[in-house]
Amino acid sequence: MMARNGQKLGDSTVDGTAPRAGTASEERFTFSPQPSVEDIRRLQAEFTDERDWNKFHQPRNLLLAMVGEVGEVSELFQWKGEVAEGLPDWSDSEREQLAHELSDVFIYLVELAEKCRVDLPQAVLRKMALNRLKYPASKVHGSAKKYTEYKD
Amino acid sequence: MMARNGQKLGDSTVDGTAPRAGTASEERFTFSPQPSVEDIRRLQAEFTDERDWNKFHQPRNLLLAMVGEVGEVSELFQWKGEVAEGLPDWSDSEREQLAHELSDVFIYLVELAEKCRVDLPQAVLRKMALNRLKYPASKVHGSAKKYTEYKD
Amino acid sequence: MMARNGQKLGDSTVDGTAPRAGTASEERFTFSPQPSVEDIRRLQAEFTDERDWNKFHQPRNLLLAMVGEVGEVSELFQWKGEVAEGLPDWSDSEREQLAHELSDVFIYLVELAEKCRVDLPQAVLRKMALNRLKYPASKVHGSAKKYTEYKD
Amino acid sequence: MMARNGQKLGDSTVDGTAPRAGTASEERFTFSPQPSVEDIRRLQAEFTDERDWNKFHQPRNLLLAMVGEVGEVSELFQWKGEVAEGLPDWSDSEREQLAHELSDVFIYLVELAEKCRVDLPQAVLRKMALNRLKYPASKVHGSAKKYTEYKD
Repeated sequence: MMARNGQKLGDSTVDGTAPRAGTASEERFTFSPQPSVEDIRRLQAEFTDERDWNKFHQPRNLLLAMVGEVGEVSELFQWKGEVAEGLPDWSDSEREQLAHELSDVFIYLVELAEKCRVDLPQAVLRKMALNRLKYPASKVHGSAKKYTEYKD
Repeated sequence: MMARNGQKLGDSTVDGTAPRAGTASEERFTFSPQPSVEDIRRLQAEFTDERDWNKFHQPRNLLLAMVGEVGEVSELFQWKGEVAEGLPDWSDSEREQLAHELSDVFIYLVELAEKCRVDLPQAVLRKMALNRLKYPASKVHGSAKKYTEYKD
Repeated sequence: MMARNGQKLGDSTVDGTAPRAGTASEERFTFSPQPSVEDIRRLQAEFTDERDWNKFHQPRNLLLAMVGEVGEVSELFQWKGEVAEGLPDWSDSEREQLAHELSDVFIYLVELAEKCRVDLPQAVLRKMALNRLKYPASKVHGSAKKYTEYKD
Repeated sequence: MMARNGQKLGDSTVDGTAPRAGTASEERFTFSPQPSVEDIRRLQAEFTDERDWNKFHQPRNLLLAMVGEVGEVSELFQWKGEVAEGLPDWSDSEREQLAHELSDVFIYLVELAEKCRVDLPQAVLRKMALNRLKYPASKVHGSAKKYTEYKD
């Protein structure tokens, strides 16, 4: 276990001290620094090895498994209409279920990338560099219309 | 910066040294240690902030965007029949395209988790612990039948 | 061909006569009576046969193709926030694009069912009968809470 | 019109007669002629009306529900490796489950099209006409390479 997850950006004190008054709404949610993507890959590879399941974990099987998990995430959102950031009306049980399903998507994504020999963390950096070229901030800033046109 | 980047199985060009005889096939593909999941979250948050796009990046929008990217991954696999680990018959162009699409899934997954206040790296550890309880290695080892029954 | 599509429910005059004043808002959108699901299956089978593509149209290939098309539908909805019935703010071009993508999902669904020997129209009737048993109107009427609990 | 339709479940005309020698493998599976797509739309609209569920069946909710059902279809195929036409190794229970899940995809697709005012049967005819123009049989016949290039 850990003292606290979801540190604010650049926060060096993650020990559970109370946030300063007036700053709570400005603090940005962050992820825990660990495990890394490679840690997750290694843990899942060990899990698969220990069960002798690599024969089932071929690329298309993993892809379909990921599609199944994306479907389970969708089922959590399907009858809710628009959902605001932070899921203000969700129960603890729904949040935990969502955490599980997003994790399942992540686990299969990581294993699919591994079996396809895609270095996922580095691939993301390359794709983000392309996205910055494709959608220059100066051109697309703040306009839904421009945004949609660019995305289309 | 990093010790090893996405070394393909048997790749002799990544670190400049020839693979030792007899070890190439035993070396397991690994991911680069960086960026972390939190690095990716922060970089994508900066990208979204700079473009004033947070208003578009509500949870269900991000979920549908992720579904769209999973669809693009599927399109790369859809007419190929069974695909072996390592994608032996894929062209460099197809591999690069796959790296892009898997990255897009990852980016939207990370941003969806952030907007839902799910600490994705820690959530994965919790889910993996549940998976180890649910599928004990001693019970499910090596049997397709047992595997399927357990998964069902 | 037919004179008009989208007849109101039970309309026996589909020749384009003007709707009676005051009834427009009560008229329910309907589909054209043709083609049937079997017509669509047969037309798509002919299309596939003529191109000698059956070797590519194995069940999992068709499933991944359907996932790809669902992704394309999702891309049309992904940045829009909540969308009202009838898509009041969509352009003609967006509507036409949506018609194409929904059709692609349908075509692959039909061909997937065929290749799996599932009599899709009859299977739907059986599933609808199950749904009526599972969600009795008297118990679930009009309550979001009941609805969600039942669906969960 | 057709030699056999929907030769399964409830069909009283195909259950006792032995197939003629040499013809069984040439006979093509077909769907039952009914219900029509419009019948399915109407039945589902009645189901939704009776439960006062239209308020939940907005376009994006239905889309996410469809994604969820596509996920359930995927789960049936995910650990099987390549699956041959006709699903020769599937149990009756698996076939029935597949029939249910494909039906769920179909039901939500139909209701999504209705709520978006897309005349689905006619839209399919238009899309098929476009597909015939896009992939002329004379150019793409029988070649995986040509097929892939065209599809790409």
